[in-house]
Amino acid sequence: MSQPDFALRNNIRFKGGTPLVERWLLQQIFKAIGPAPLRFAFQDGEEMVPAGVAPVATVVIRDRRTLARMIVDPEIAFGEAFAGGRIEVEGDLARALEAVYESWPSGRANTSWYQRVTSSLMGWRQANSLHGSRQNVHCHYDLGNDFYKLWLDPQLVYTCAYYPSPSATLAEAQEAKLDYVCRKLQLQPGDRVIEAGCGWGALALHMARHYGVSVRAFNISHEQVLHARQRAADEGLSDKVEFVEDDWRNISGNADLFVSVGMLEHVAVADYARLGEVIHRSVGDSGRGLLHFIGRSYKGVFSRWIRKRIFPGAYAPTLGEAMNVLQPHRYAVTDFENLRPHYARTLEHWLERFEQSGEQVSAMYDPWFQRAWRLYLAGSIAAFRTGTLQLFQISFAGAKSRPTSWTRAPLYTDQGPAQRGLAWTHATS
Amino acid sequence: MSQPDFALRNNIRFKGGTPLVERWLLQQIFKAIGPAPLRFAFQDGEEMVPAGVAPVATVVIRDRRTLARMIVDPEIAFGEAFAGGRIEVEGDLARALEAVYESWPSGRANTSWYQRVTSSLMGWRQANSLHGSRQNVHCHYDLGNDFYKLWLDPQLVYTCAYYPSPSATLAEAQEAKLDYVCRKLQLQPGDRVIEAGCGWGALALHMARHYGVSVRAFNISHEQVLHARQRAADEGLSDKVEFVEDDWRNISGNADLFVSVGMLEHVAVADYARLGEVIHRSVGDSGRGLLHFIGRSYKGVFSRWIRKRIFPGAYAPTLGEAMNVLQPHRYAVTDFENLRPHYARTLEHWLERFEQSGEQVSAMYDPWFQRAWRLYLAGSIAAFRTGTLQLFQISFAGAKSRPTSWTRAPLYTDQGPAQRGLAWTHATS
Repeated sequence: MSQPDFALRNNIRFKGGTPLVERWLLQQIFKAIGPAPLRFAFQDGEEMVPAGVAPVATVVIRDRRTLARMIVDPEIAFGEAFAGGRIEVEGDLARALEAVYESWPSGRANTSWYQRVTSSLMGWRQANSLHGSRQNVHCHYDLGNDFYKLWLDPQLVYTCAYYPSPSATLAEAQEAKLDYVCRKLQLQPGDRVIEAGCGWGALALHMARHYGVSVRAFNISHEQVLHARQRAADEGLSDKVEFVEDDWRNISGNADLFVSVGMLEHVAVADYARLGEVIHRSVGDSGRGLLHFIGRSYKGVFSRWIRKRIFPGAYAPTLGEAMNVLQPHRYAVTDFENLRPHYARTLEHWLERFEQSGEQVSAMYDPWFQRAWRLYLAGSIAAFRTGTLQLFQISFAGAKSRPTSWTRAPLYTDQGPAQRGLAWTHATS
Repeated sequence: MSQPDFALRNNIRFKGGTPLVERWLLQQIFKAIGPAPLRFAFQDGEEMVPAGVAPVATVVIRDRRTLARMIVDPEIAFGEAFAGGRIEVEGDLARALEAVYESWPSGRANTSWYQRVTSSLMGWRQANSLHGSRQNVHCHYDLGNDFYKLWLDPQLVYTCAYYPSPSATLAEAQEAKLDYVCRKLQLQPGDRVIEAGCGWGALALHMARHYGVSVRAFNISHEQVLHARQRAADEGLSDKVEFVEDDWRNISGNADLFVSVGMLEHVAVADYARLGEVIHRSVGDSGRGLLHFIGRSYKGVFSRWIRKRIFPGAYAPTLGEAMNVLQPHRYAVTDFENLRPHYARTLEHWLERFEQSGEQVSAMYDPWFQRAWRLYLAGSIAAFRTGTLQLFQISFAGAKSRPTSWTRAPLYTDQGPAQRGLAWTHATS
């Protein structure tokens, strides 16, 4: 036949021959996720397309059992089936996931009791105690520096970059981010800085190198701390930057500034007041600081698949929740910026480089791992593009802190010591 | 005698001859407010000075009854006695009040049950119901436009200004603030704007005049609305700007943007969710907006004297509390700026002009009113200088809003249509 034989059911077109059971299962998926512009195909060539929209990608489902699992527990089943190769997406994976996020009913009110209970149990199993944090962080950040070197920027910055213009490269944007954070902190030579969660040390080294400050940087990822110490030694900065392998709860010493980039996601909400105490113990009422973290415009948790396979124990708070860190000690928020589009761009760069390094990744890890990370990176792109996730930079100051810049203009008109001579230029439109 | 005869008691020096009762009363004041660098003098020339600090001003107390009242209920007694002329401050009033704020024990933990109960009762009496709001606003904003013309800028903007440099004049800084708000909103010609609480109309007129947008602006101050309508007519902008004399709860119509400058202080915290509903009803998920208001870095209430005599029903929320407006509708905060130093500067300009207009003010109102307003303006300077109060500008966007500027740089590098040709320049240091 020249025209496929479609039957219209609930605004979904089925190619003729789709068995009734699968039709029913697919209808349940469309009910759950809403009218996403996705073509669903089965291994035997049968297809389902939502009526009236052009599909952005094709989801190929290999077997009926996978389809059934998607109904019972889509959060886990989709990720597991994708990583296991039982589901494939033909076309732009990030765009396909974005379509799902966009069509997903607001508030996910249809979350089942099963999902709610398992979500809570997972939160309990992955609690960020001193020991739990170390385990959770080990799972992700100790995968091997060689792996991250394949697709991060040369400085190994594994947090949202700052793109002065959308055309900046990843390396430029990460360098710009490091300097943007320094300029937001308004560092002065001789300042003492405490950094909580320092990754491979790029920010601490940047601060010492360009701003003449001394830094005590804390991290519980053993691999990262070893790497950071080596870099400090190589650059002759070991006397300015001390990398301490310890938990944020054990941060000691006094400082003028407190900075944390990409760590709050790994702190339990119940511990926010305690983090506030650590900040206050470190910098007191005269201190200032900056917190950079993945946040949300509404309360929500990461999908259970992400917490199971990628980021155990992670949580992205609302701005209101984050205030529980600062408010008990009367730290005033002096500036807040939402860099959501910058994280989507950063992740696009990461995914692109991850795919370009496909051969090396597959030589290091099994296909399951590679597919799981592809899904994680593409899913994160979709989350930041759609606003499911946001990226917050909060600057704060104690009641007795020294005066800071009169306006924010110098952040953009005075490029600071580290910026003069960089290749990129500020956006002017 | 050549040297005054001082006796040291609890680190306070008394000039000889101070009666025992007054000594005791004064010691209670020092205990309550902490070691403020203030000289206290009685009408008969006796003095009390804290040891070891140079006094910044002299508080002259006319009678013992006033002194006693200060112990029982300092929040009300000081204001009432100052307005009534039974207390005078020799020297810089704002600096004297700043000294009190700075020495005041953190958290005002020593607030008595009497003060807590009367504070709650006042909150109840001044509740911002539809009727209550109208009464509360009438008390302050309907004092007569001629009065405000004496000491506000030519455009009659009665909210925090934005000083591109600290040397800008009040008129320049208010014009700059109006334009800064417009640029933060990223207005496009043809946009429809709803403004909640529009004062004498300056922002609405600025938006229509310079950005080609149409504005529906709401206000329950009768005097202000009449004045604003006249200005729109004089400028030929009546077809672009509609001034509606109605409460924010009755805001109707759809728009692209929602802006409110200096109104949230007059909304009850319990009504924040309702304000969020009004915003969402107006601009939906595709809308954006800006809220500008007096806030705090910790929960607290205005002094009872301020609420009794100056701003009935007013409240300054924390950032976390303000999130109750935006979070239920998943509005993402895209930008936040704390303009605290700018409000201190604005108030310095207002107080200076208020004092320069002393003769005209005393021709309009009795001495009690003039002294009360002097205390209100000076006390506000002190509150913003010390961080007791803050000034928040929150930009927000719905999940489906159109893309906005890639970075904040254009706010500072591209001056926008209304700015080219203005006299002031951006800070560059």
